[in-house]
Amino acid sequence: MINRLIARIQQTGAPIVVGLDPMMKFIPPQIQEAAFALHGETLEGAAEAIWQYNKGIVDAVCDLIPAVKPQIAMYEQFGVPGVIAFKKTVDYCKEKGLVVIGDVKRGDIGSTSEAYAVGHLGRVQVGQNTCCGFDEDFVTVNPYLGSDGVKPFIKVCREEKKGIFVLVKTSNPSSGELQDKLVDGRPVYELVGEQVAAWGEECMGDSYSYVGAVVGATYPEQGRILRQIMPRAFILVPGYGAQGGRGADLVHFFNRDGLGAIINSSRGIIAAYQQEKYAGYGAANYADASRAAVLDMREDIARALASAGSGR
Amino acid sequence: MINRLIARIQQTGAPIVVGLDPMMKFIPPQIQEAAFALHGETLEGAAEAIWQYNKGIVDAVCDLIPAVKPQIAMYEQFGVPGVIAFKKTVDYCKEKGLVVIGDVKRGDIGSTSEAYAVGHLGRVQVGQNTCCGFDEDFVTVNPYLGSDGVKPFIKVCREEKKGIFVLVKTSNPSSGELQDKLVDGRPVYELVGEQVAAWGEECMGDSYSYVGAVVGATYPEQGRILRQIMPRAFILVPGYGAQGGRGADLVHFFNRDGLGAIINSSRGIIAAYQQEKYAGYGAANYADASRAAVLDMREDIARALASAGSGR
Repeated sequence: MINRLIARIQQTGAPIVVGLDPMMKFIPPQIQEAAFALHGETLEGAAEAIWQYNKGIVDAVCDLIPAVKPQIAMYEQFGVPGVIAFKKTVDYCKEKGLVVIGDVKRGDIGSTSEAYAVGHLGRVQVGQNTCCGFDEDFVTVNPYLGSDGVKPFIKVCREEKKGIFVLVKTSNPSSGELQDKLVDGRPVYELVGEQVAAWGEECMGDSYSYVGAVVGATYPEQGRILRQIMPRAFILVPGYGAQGGRGADLVHFFNRDGLGAIINSSRGIIAAYQQEKYAGYGAANYADASRAAVLDMREDIARALASAGSGR
Repeated sequence: MINRLIARIQQTGAPIVVGLDPMMKFIPPQIQEAAFALHGETLEGAAEAIWQYNKGIVDAVCDLIPAVKPQIAMYEQFGVPGVIAFKKTVDYCKEKGLVVIGDVKRGDIGSTSEAYAVGHLGRVQVGQNTCCGFDEDFVTVNPYLGSDGVKPFIKVCREEKKGIFVLVKTSNPSSGELQDKLVDGRPVYELVGEQVAAWGEECMGDSYSYVGAVVGATYPEQGRILRQIMPRAFILVPGYGAQGGRGADLVHFFNRDGLGAIINSSRGIIAAYQQEKYAGYGAANYADASRAAVLDMREDIARALASAGSGR
């Protein structure tokens, strides 16, 4: 799957993942009204609205991008109907040829992580059958419980040729409270980065590992260091756009082969029509605004990489 | 909700939470067969089996215990039908008067943690309505992302009078890889424990805080230290029984008021009939075996607390 992700990045020229993180306030009124007309102002109504909204965006951008990253929290907030919309979104994106990164940030003790791994990436045994639960291509994993919380995911990745991104240095302002703490003079995120590199060796694709890392665009200097610590790990980079990361910040997340990172933007793309820059599209054409925002993001990153390439 | 949990602990004399963590291998054949007859060997069949299995256990033990802790991974492994079974279990346990601790170990950047908090503990806005998603009473929270990943949960706890248990020192063998790392001579779990104590002050019930902690029974010495660092935090203690924790290990997780901790047992209770000690019940009477195991666990803890009480 890491090979497939890389092939799609090369094909599209866009190391971009669109975060499908729907919130009601992003969803154009016409979609909300139609969904509520069907199901009322209920969880089912909300779930229908986010599904229709997602579908519009996916249809508009799927030829431009390699991957999407639905954030499951944004679906769980709508309970069971929301989770059903999550699964429909995963399936639809896969039908459209997109790589699906489930941003689930799961992680638990061994046997429990195994259940998450099986449910999100693998197959579960039911009687004589094996069945797929959510069936994403990648998921994000929280390392707080140590290697026996992560290894069950790696086992399933090896069996299914799927992948994970382990949280190393997250994009949020308070990520440093724990992740930057110094252990023998070195920050926790470096130690976790070393673990990611070690886990990744057990599980290699052609040039990169199935075991990647999450490092926020908002921490470019840490990105540079982690790039060196984990040379074969793909880095999933959130925090571009709405959280403050810019194209120029991203350069050090990439290797000299021009690969090694994939940049996420969520509301910067999916709610583009609410930004001044794309307001001309209007709510009715929200998906076209998202397409324009993807094209701009692709160019911003390409320009940053080109100017860095001539500089380094 | 922390007041209610404490009241129920005092009423039952059992600082015990039963982990409803169903795995197919625990489920008696007669339940599996009936479920597969209805739905085939499918995710729906598995979900029906875990729901019926849970219901039998809850019916058999609900008068003895204050709370249950369904581990959502064990449901997510069966995809959407599994999540539906999770929600049915939550609702049923609440009907039976049990406090429900959703063991979800969520945690993310601010706006995303807010969605988890809303989905699991609060209400989400849908048009003019507010709707409940999963509606547990407590959830477990992962602190790797720092305070802006935790505070949205605390906000919802304050609004809804619900609670959280933050992972501090988990019960698994590799928990020390990150949690025991020394920062200025002190382990990470102590620093997180201090944060839990500080967060908890913002959100107090009558005698304990809505913000509790998870500390594994397998680490009694760390439990003793953390008990002192977080005097008003309730500690959720996994790892009793199958993971190796014993009654005597639990003493230091409690305060002198005899409160302050609630001990989880999962497979030790729900799959008791598979243990030699309770094998006489047979698979047909699996729920009676669970009841017997709860009674034994209650006595084991009471004995340990009594002998410690006379000693300290």
